[in-house]
Amino acid sequence: MQGTQDTPSQASYTATDRTVPTRAAHKASYDKDVVHAILDEGYVCHLGFVRDGAPVVLPTLYGRVGERLYVHGSTGSRPLRMAGQSDPGLAVCLTVTHVDALILARSAFHHSINYRSVVVHGIAHDVTDADEKRQALDALVDHVVPGRSQDSRPANAKEFAATAVLRLDLDEVSAKMRTGGVNDEPEDLALPHWAGVVPLRKGYETPVGDPDLAPGTELPDYLVADRACRQA
Amino acid sequence: MQGTQDTPSQASYTATDRTVPTRAAHKASYDKDVVHAILDEGYVCHLGFVRDGAPVVLPTLYGRVGERLYVHGSTGSRPLRMAGQSDPGLAVCLTVTHVDALILARSAFHHSINYRSVVVHGIAHDVTDADEKRQALDALVDHVVPGRSQDSRPANAKEFAATAVLRLDLDEVSAKMRTGGVNDEPEDLALPHWAGVVPLRKGYETPVGDPDLAPGTELPDYLVADRACRQA
Repeated sequence: MQGTQDTPSQASYTATDRTVPTRAAHKASYDKDVVHAILDEGYVCHLGFVRDGAPVVLPTLYGRVGERLYVHGSTGSRPLRMAGQSDPGLAVCLTVTHVDALILARSAFHHSINYRSVVVHGIAHDVTDADEKRQALDALVDHVVPGRSQDSRPANAKEFAATAVLRLDLDEVSAKMRTGGVNDEPEDLALPHWAGVVPLRKGYETPVGDPDLAPGTELPDYLVADRACRQA
Repeated sequence: MQGTQDTPSQASYTATDRTVPTRAAHKASYDKDVVHAILDEGYVCHLGFVRDGAPVVLPTLYGRVGERLYVHGSTGSRPLRMAGQSDPGLAVCLTVTHVDALILARSAFHHSINYRSVVVHGIAHDVTDADEKRQALDALVDHVVPGRSQDSRPANAKEFAATAVLRLDLDEVSAKMRTGGVNDEPEDLALPHWAGVVPLRKGYETPVGDPDLAPGTELPDYLVADRACRQA
């Protein structure tokens, strides 16, 4: 999931009109490491596209290989078909968001959440090169659990043919986040309402093995060691 | 956050071309109780709209009052301004997704996640009625922590004027979900790869009080009791 070969001069994405927020621009970041970390921690993205003039937003799994994101689906699914039939591709907006904590202020107005999000604008292309498609499918599995593509049966020819993959280059990209505590007005500090930060739980609960596991199959280390450091 | 007065004949949303998935239609639901439960459990939605012909997807807080959803923001924020300036309003797609568990199959192809999502299509309208706007702002705070609007200072005139609220009626709506365990092919069951369900952790970590809490301010019961039953 890493594999970027950034030089110092390429360490940030170039801001565009679409990636500079109209509000709270100080919360925005174009740093590639920040963007990659947020993307790599997520499970689903929300993929937006336009159909018959109206917006559509669908949750979907994704994977990252360097500066490319991949989403996949059945060759019959709507956005996959639309991208395959469009020239030069399908205009999309792909967004990943983590909710880290609830911010309870004394004032209703200052209630908030601590979050980290990435928004990617661009054109999604159908991946037709077989090698790139295999690499993308591995990245999609490794995105769910790092290293998992090496511990599962790869797609056979039928499965490979039934799966469509879209590529979206990380080019027009921004991250946005809120961190820290409560920002109440000074005159509200004496109010009797509890105020503070409520962190949300992250990570894995105890994995539940399939009832038909082959005899002697042990829980792999990558499921034990990673239990506390990923998020929903 | 409840407050619906559904009669039995109104217990489902009417399916439309946009809300019937092209794939896995058996995973779709139009049941109002199912939709409401998914919406009420979320913290952020992903709001999609079209700007200059291209899709935009932004994460934002939301609240529900019966069959109406509300999002809010600064009066200067982009979608809020666009909706206020549009007639009859802004075409949006609002999506809420919960990731419940990772599904690790023996085959890469059958890796998946257990999830629950709701997709709402419709026209978002700027809320201009002051009473409806106050009710919406309460719903937004109560959505973060149920009951919290009664334990915080309501918006003053300046805060109220600086906040824009959009309403989206629950009309063209569907839920979609995956539950259950691993669906590997019969011929893969003897493979030595661990397979099973990895549930993701939900709920609150220990709340951290603001350092300037008024003397004697106790952690409210609603933060203790709810610790395990909400999700990120």
